[in-house]
Amino acid sequence: MKNFLLLLVVTIIFFSCQGPQNKNTQQNVYGSPPASITKDTQSAHGITGPLSYGPTVPATQPGDTIEVKFDVQHKLFHIKNNVAYKAWMFGDSVPGPILKVRVGQVVKFSMTNRSNENVPLSMDMDHSTDIEHTIMPMPHSIDFHAAMVNPEDKYRSINPGETIHFTWTANYPGVFMYHCGTPMVLMHMIYGMIGMVIVEPKSGFPGKVDHEFAFVQNEYYLRKMNDSTYIPDTAMARLKQPSFVTFNGKVAQYVLHPIPVKAGERIRVFFINDGPNNATSFHVIGTIFDKVWLDGNPANKLEGMQAVYLGPACGAIMEFVVPEKGRYTFVDHSFADAEMGAIGQFVAE
Amino acid sequence: MKNFLLLLVVTIIFFSCQGPQNKNTQQNVYGSPPASITKDTQSAHGITGPLSYGPTVPATQPGDTIEVKFDVQHKLFHIKNNVAYKAWMFGDSVPGPILKVRVGQVVKFSMTNRSNENVPLSMDMDHSTDIEHTIMPMPHSIDFHAAMVNPEDKYRSINPGETIHFTWTANYPGVFMYHCGTPMVLMHMIYGMIGMVIVEPKSGFPGKVDHEFAFVQNEYYLRKMNDSTYIPDTAMARLKQPSFVTFNGKVAQYVLHPIPVKAGERIRVFFINDGPNNATSFHVIGTIFDKVWLDGNPANKLEGMQAVYLGPACGAIMEFVVPEKGRYTFVDHSFADAEMGAIGQFVAE
Amino acid sequence: MKNFLLLLVVTIIFFSCQGPQNKNTQQNVYGSPPASITKDTQSAHGITGPLSYGPTVPATQPGDTIEVKFDVQHKLFHIKNNVAYKAWMFGDSVPGPILKVRVGQVVKFSMTNRSNENVPLSMDMDHSTDIEHTIMPMPHSIDFHAAMVNPEDKYRSINPGETIHFTWTANYPGVFMYHCGTPMVLMHMIYGMIGMVIVEPKSGFPGKVDHEFAFVQNEYYLRKMNDSTYIPDTAMARLKQPSFVTFNGKVAQYVLHPIPVKAGERIRVFFINDGPNNATSFHVIGTIFDKVWLDGNPANKLEGMQAVYLGPACGAIMEFVVPEKGRYTFVDHSFADAEMGAIGQFVAE
Repeated sequence: MKNFLLLLVVTIIFFSCQGPQNKNTQQNVYGSPPASITKDTQSAHGITGPLSYGPTVPATQPGDTIEVKFDVQHKLFHIKNNVAYKAWMFGDSVPGPILKVRVGQVVKFSMTNRSNENVPLSMDMDHSTDIEHTIMPMPHSIDFHAAMVNPEDKYRSINPGETIHFTWTANYPGVFMYHCGTPMVLMHMIYGMIGMVIVEPKSGFPGKVDHEFAFVQNEYYLRKMNDSTYIPDTAMARLKQPSFVTFNGKVAQYVLHPIPVKAGERIRVFFINDGPNNATSFHVIGTIFDKVWLDGNPANKLEGMQAVYLGPACGAIMEFVVPEKGRYTFVDHSFADAEMGAIGQFVAE
Repeated sequence: MKNFLLLLVVTIIFFSCQGPQNKNTQQNVYGSPPASITKDTQSAHGITGPLSYGPTVPATQPGDTIEVKFDVQHKLFHIKNNVAYKAWMFGDSVPGPILKVRVGQVVKFSMTNRSNENVPLSMDMDHSTDIEHTIMPMPHSIDFHAAMVNPEDKYRSINPGETIHFTWTANYPGVFMYHCGTPMVLMHMIYGMIGMVIVEPKSGFPGKVDHEFAFVQNEYYLRKMNDSTYIPDTAMARLKQPSFVTFNGKVAQYVLHPIPVKAGERIRVFFINDGPNNATSFHVIGTIFDKVWLDGNPANKLEGMQAVYLGPACGAIMEFVVPEKGRYTFVDHSFADAEMGAIGQFVAE
Repeated sequence: MKNFLLLLVVTIIFFSCQGPQNKNTQQNVYGSPPASITKDTQSAHGITGPLSYGPTVPATQPGDTIEVKFDVQHKLFHIKNNVAYKAWMFGDSVPGPILKVRVGQVVKFSMTNRSNENVPLSMDMDHSTDIEHTIMPMPHSIDFHAAMVNPEDKYRSINPGETIHFTWTANYPGVFMYHCGTPMVLMHMIYGMIGMVIVEPKSGFPGKVDHEFAFVQNEYYLRKMNDSTYIPDTAMARLKQPSFVTFNGKVAQYVLHPIPVKAGERIRVFFINDGPNNATSFHVIGTIFDKVWLDGNPANKLEGMQAVYLGPACGAIMEFVVPEKGRYTFVDHSFADAEMGAIGQFVAE
């Protein structure tokens, strides 16, 4: 009997020694029924689902299936005072809304292409050919890096006035990019069609934190048209020479409006680099990342990191302690990017 | 006796708990006998050994010692329709042949510099000084990142008509770059003298897959000379501003000729970024990498990755499941690179 | 009794299975008393503490508290023959001195801004506005990535003639950047105000090596003013297009003066990429990194790596064996950087 107990202990130890690599062995769901496209645009505008705009992290919804709805629209977007361009956007911002789901949840997704609804524009422009081109209604699509489905079917382009419907299931926890996948893809991304999905493990992310924030980094490639109107410049994007780099779409917005925290608190940051081209070296001045989970998967853990270097379409979840009262600037430590706008602040009381 | 058995079990568990970090503790082989250089160029042309051109992964050869032979030649190479340049190449392509060996195998390597054998050129050129320069016979060499030997000896330059002979032993499993190391090294690399070695563990790579494919990514820095003839441009390479980026040397070749797979299959990709300058964010649209082994070493495991960011001279082995029938485009998600040619497709029936 | 012993063994195994993730659970120290600023500049010039200039790794000092003192000065600095610029520097070089501390040690730090003491300049210059600007005394500061303190307090700028005093405690082992954090930060970094801190675990870094070397990589963005005088160019830095890239501040210095080692020795390299902008792919030709600890933390281990790709403000500790007698060139394998000066050599007898 004692030996039996020992064998039991031994068995428990054996499995506990297998480490985190077995954490994802739930049954993955591959593929989903064919997408459908409808012409009904009478449905309500706006976004539906466990969604928020950064830096707020949305709450997950209970249940095995959730409904999520995006619109695509073309709309003037200010990335800072006196710098605006005609953006192509998911929902009502650049980047689009953050979606949060749980591993195993089925996402019933639909998206309506409303690129034809905001024309003519209210912005004061010179009606050059370039500008005219950017405001035209056009096909769009969405590509979720968190999904495992046939892109030819689910990520296909839909015309203005059409709605696409498809489902997908989150298999892996982490932080994932989404973006428009309609050619020329680089162009659709620099116009603003990018975003983030957070997938939490079935039992939630391990460990307790005091605050959670979400940051999407992206590059703007803008050419000046007149005093405050700009137009995305694909040639600059091909040279990977951005004009602005931002967290959650606006230049230095969290310097203008710092994020309040408290001394001693543990902060979790959900971070995706939506590029489209360049890497970021995310760093919070005055502290050190206690934990880093590459692509947001707890199996991919690093410790004690001063910065996290993330390529385009790469993400991480980072945790850190706010050491004392003060002002903690966070930057892309590829410092030219900080000078171009990838800078913000936490203020700790 | 029962306690003895328990102790045995405990001992087995103890060693099984040590994890993958002990996998490489076989006796490493450091260095090898001095290289020799011969003048005999009467030997057969072509490549010999466990070699293939990508995306095919060569089979390893049995035995403790294998013979491998490369030629170097100067030859017109088309990277796409109407874009050709006078390449310097290992074997008969850019990149050169993929070599696959096992940990512990001794590679008896020889390479003949045949840069003097293809002159005059058949390509239609304007005989400018620049072009003449590139077609001249010249010294070349080879530097294997998979080897641990004295570069001053084994990686020395040989003149046209010479053959170098040396041996090396693979100590670490993974995917490794090789390239010409003759100054100016950057120039020799952008002319095409790059390739990949796969080193499999003594007992093979762990896990079963349905298909294996090999991709070498590289950048071309080409200046147009006339309608279809280009010349590598070292100044552009110093600015890290490529004109084309490819998988296995040709622009978008796997869009023109997609790679067939099947729904539900598990795919293993051997990937090296041969640069020479820029990073890649390798991503397969519509799926997620179940496993990633950095530099191809199973000890360096990441899970559930949407993309893998690899600097120049860095590689990885990735595994993923094809979720359903469809078309899965793979890209360098530093998306300007995809637009410059780093794009391909798997088609799943 | 035998079963008790077995249970003991089982318990030991259980805890040995928990892996390296528990290594950093010592009590972290967050924050420190407010910094003070004094006007006394009569103190001795020079640096004080467990400091050295690379490639020498300083020894740690015993005790729970150590005193460390830097000066900031403006001084002509040669990065190669016939290339000099008026640097802003910590201590007496670019990069500044390497500081080595132990986890848990309290660093009593002070720094005097002596940017007003070397004017007028001895260098032959044309007194253009640009140059005049760079030689003016000005505020400076220091930001230690190894510390967890309020930057608004400790990393504040001090005027010429002032000395700042503050303490901080090292919580995490590894290699960390330090730099001037005075706006415009990118400018202060490209002028040379960068350096490295090594934090060793309480019981030292695990494993025995024969030699330790420290390398700081950085980019120079220099515009030529006359035959040998250059001036840092912020516009080039914003485009991330450096003119020189170096190890320990001088172009190819370890090619001119190779570092002696011996065949068969195990070498440990402490490496930080101080950027300010670009990544590095550090590689030693002819060998393979047996161990890599990302950001220098033994918890973040990779094995069998041919190269280590590190973004700006990222570091690593690498270990490798010198396989045989010979000459081992090390480079940033983003090869344009090697051509711009990020190249050196070990020579093994």
